[in-house]
Amino acid sequence: MLPPDFKTFFHPKSIAIIGASTKPFKFGNLFLKAILDFQYPGKIFPVNPRGEKIYGLDSWMLEDIPEPIDLVYITVPAKQVPEEIQKCAGRTKSVIILTAGFKETGEEGKKIEEKCAEIARKNGIRVIGPNCFGIYYAKGGITLLPGGNFPKESGNIAMLSQSGGHSVNFVLLGQSSDLKFSKVISYGNALDLDFPDFLEYLNEDPETNIVAAYIEGVRNIRKLKKVIKDFNKPLIIWKCGLRGELLHDTARAAASHTGFLAGNSEIWKGFFQQNNILLVDSFEELLDTTKALAYLPALDNTIDYRNRIGVIGGGGGIGIAITDVSNRFGLRIPKLSEEVKENLKEYIPIEGTSINNPLDTGNPMFRWGSGYRKILNIFMGDPNISVLINDLIVDYVLDLRAIHRVLRDYKEEFNIPIVIILRKLLNTLNNVALERKYRKIRDKFHASQIPVFPSFNRGVCALANYLNYYKNIK
Amino acid sequence: MLPPDFKTFFHPKSIAIIGASTKPFKFGNLFLKAILDFQYPGKIFPVNPRGEKIYGLDSWMLEDIPEPIDLVYITVPAKQVPEEIQKCAGRTKSVIILTAGFKETGEEGKKIEEKCAEIARKNGIRVIGPNCFGIYYAKGGITLLPGGNFPKESGNIAMLSQSGGHSVNFVLLGQSSDLKFSKVISYGNALDLDFPDFLEYLNEDPETNIVAAYIEGVRNIRKLKKVIKDFNKPLIIWKCGLRGELLHDTARAAASHTGFLAGNSEIWKGFFQQNNILLVDSFEELLDTTKALAYLPALDNTIDYRNRIGVIGGGGGIGIAITDVSNRFGLRIPKLSEEVKENLKEYIPIEGTSINNPLDTGNPMFRWGSGYRKILNIFMGDPNISVLINDLIVDYVLDLRAIHRVLRDYKEEFNIPIVIILRKLLNTLNNVALERKYRKIRDKFHASQIPVFPSFNRGVCALANYLNYYKNIK
Repeated sequence: MLPPDFKTFFHPKSIAIIGASTKPFKFGNLFLKAILDFQYPGKIFPVNPRGEKIYGLDSWMLEDIPEPIDLVYITVPAKQVPEEIQKCAGRTKSVIILTAGFKETGEEGKKIEEKCAEIARKNGIRVIGPNCFGIYYAKGGITLLPGGNFPKESGNIAMLSQSGGHSVNFVLLGQSSDLKFSKVISYGNALDLDFPDFLEYLNEDPETNIVAAYIEGVRNIRKLKKVIKDFNKPLIIWKCGLRGELLHDTARAAASHTGFLAGNSEIWKGFFQQNNILLVDSFEELLDTTKALAYLPALDNTIDYRNRIGVIGGGGGIGIAITDVSNRFGLRIPKLSEEVKENLKEYIPIEGTSINNPLDTGNPMFRWGSGYRKILNIFMGDPNISVLINDLIVDYVLDLRAIHRVLRDYKEEFNIPIVIILRKLLNTLNNVALERKYRKIRDKFHASQIPVFPSFNRGVCALANYLNYYKNIK
Repeated sequence: MLPPDFKTFFHPKSIAIIGASTKPFKFGNLFLKAILDFQYPGKIFPVNPRGEKIYGLDSWMLEDIPEPIDLVYITVPAKQVPEEIQKCAGRTKSVIILTAGFKETGEEGKKIEEKCAEIARKNGIRVIGPNCFGIYYAKGGITLLPGGNFPKESGNIAMLSQSGGHSVNFVLLGQSSDLKFSKVISYGNALDLDFPDFLEYLNEDPETNIVAAYIEGVRNIRKLKKVIKDFNKPLIIWKCGLRGELLHDTARAAASHTGFLAGNSEIWKGFFQQNNILLVDSFEELLDTTKALAYLPALDNTIDYRNRIGVIGGGGGIGIAITDVSNRFGLRIPKLSEEVKENLKEYIPIEGTSINNPLDTGNPMFRWGSGYRKILNIFMGDPNISVLINDLIVDYVLDLRAIHRVLRDYKEEFNIPIVIILRKLLNTLNNVALERKYRKIRDKFHASQIPVFPSFNRGVCALANYLNYYKNIK
């Protein structure tokens, strides 16, 4: 089989949409609307036998289109898809099938899917999908269904997903974390191009530094093994059902989603862990870990940073909660040296505080403004501390902007990993001002490449995944 | 020793604040401000030897106050506290020490704390604290430091906490979940009144139906055992460090917070589990589990509802994620019966959906409006389903109000447990309109006693804790 021409998938000069429709809620309507909204710069050929105008564009019969098409999207019902792929022969090398209703629905759908694969193979056509939402690649002007409003700006995070919903949600929620994407590929049932094919491509892709993935199963295990062994970028996989004990229901749910059996969890787990692939348990963990790896510096694997965590927060209970969750995720919070304790006493009142690690600065905390730098210098100067978790409560901290400036400058100078837990208590239900304050300060930290997380669990978990990655790097 | 006179703690007719101060950030200033803002209806005597006016109130020498005081708050530095307690002899039976700087700071502080305990005991004074934020009891007009803006409305949830910060945060974040409180007690180092004393009281308190707690340690283990065995309300404990393997750091952090050694985690764990106490691992889980127990109906323990979960959402990946996390928390998602599947086919298009459990209704989902009731009737009519998890995305669901009405009516008719996962993708960063829409629909569900959670993990975890409670009830 010919290697996939990813250039036509990512930089198509022309697109045809088979099944383009005037009817709202049809995939062929929603998808056309999405790429129009996204201002796809190439030629668009809506394909519809009724010859209607759709969003102002003339519609075509596929056979009448006067030039080869870089990329064809198919949105007609499953039963008609084999015939449409056959029609594509000689007209395109690259097809994305958005339509659902294939092997995930049972035997009949499976047969249709196999027929599609066979026709594509015979005609030198490479396929993404079916049962997917397509590709988001801002530089190529293309977007997922429904991603008309996705950011135009590119970044270096790639995302691969067998669920269209998760891929869309990852981009949308990623925006709140200022994550920027190289390529996002929703590939559904993977009748042709599959997880290993995309990974192989992304390993060489100069635009991609990190890969996040949601997968349910892989067809070509041999290729997967080879590609994973060669993979040299952080790869984070949310693999539902990997836990094993009660795999049954999840495997069944996956089978009726993309038609994959989720497989033996223990084998998957061991294989990925051996190759320093980060396995995560939830959508939030996938997002948070991606963010930690995107924002925090690369580390030297001869030092075990996991044992070198310093924690600062206002309130004793907060420090205990962070320590507890840190210990659970395998991180250690070392004692402060006596010298450092003595030096801190000059700046921190003894009552209602605790000069230890975690450092409890008392409440209302952080009245120092830019004087916070002195405390940071002493605390982070402890010979056993190299990483900082700083808890901040938007409602209480008196000068968040000064704290931000101090941490930003400290990070710029020493390039150490700093993670912020930024919490809001929202003491009135519809406190929009506080909400805005929260977002403003979060954005400031993100602009300084300091990641912000909304809870102890989420922040510490992401930090632990990041530290594990660099400790276990080959 | 005399039993504590909880009436004077919760319904004080008069309050003295030793250490009341004009200086901002002093506990004696912040606390006075808090109860003034909260409109405490009784008499307030600020005690300060300088005789200044504080917030318009005359200040007093304690010995000059012309009547017995129901409740005395002490806010002066630790070293002066023993003397102040001595002065209280004969003037009050109830003291709350807000001041920190006792056994949590080391040997010297421990000695002062022991001295306070001794003086109190000799003079028939019962003490809450030190190193605490006091009591929030809306009916008695008293509030925590700093809780001037806490809700005036009461409910039936009690909260006990050794951390002042966690108690304040629990009330504030509880507001977003419409949780209403009977009594919230921050009791810090517990030099006299301790966890078992409060539990014993709450077990008999007709205003309290559920107790949430954050504890670090308990002095009188014998009393704890007795009280826990007799306890007949849902009790949820966030016990940091219970996990054990890496207990060391957390135990040390707790020692320097309230001076307790967190103890042998396995023994704690086994003892609590035997007595159907729910142990939780994070602040969010404490809040969410309290909410699930407050909102959802009591269940018959002869049926194992944990195996009878139905899941509805729009999108295949969503169902898999919910199933995965359900399995992890010990819940099972049974198959749909063939008859139910056949009946659902009449109402749900086959393409892009999945007629199974989880039921994937496709995207954009829920175009039925009030027709959703028919689907619910068939799906929940399955002989193996008795509990519903319904995932909704604010950005996508077309008629959230109709969905709410259908679920509300269904719940009213059948009184089954329904849990909503309500997610927002916030496709523009500062989408205040979407934020408002989210809160509005969340509030509607809460008003119908249907709890709303922001993620799969949080919703399923809270549901599992609630179902475990009723399955294991004695």
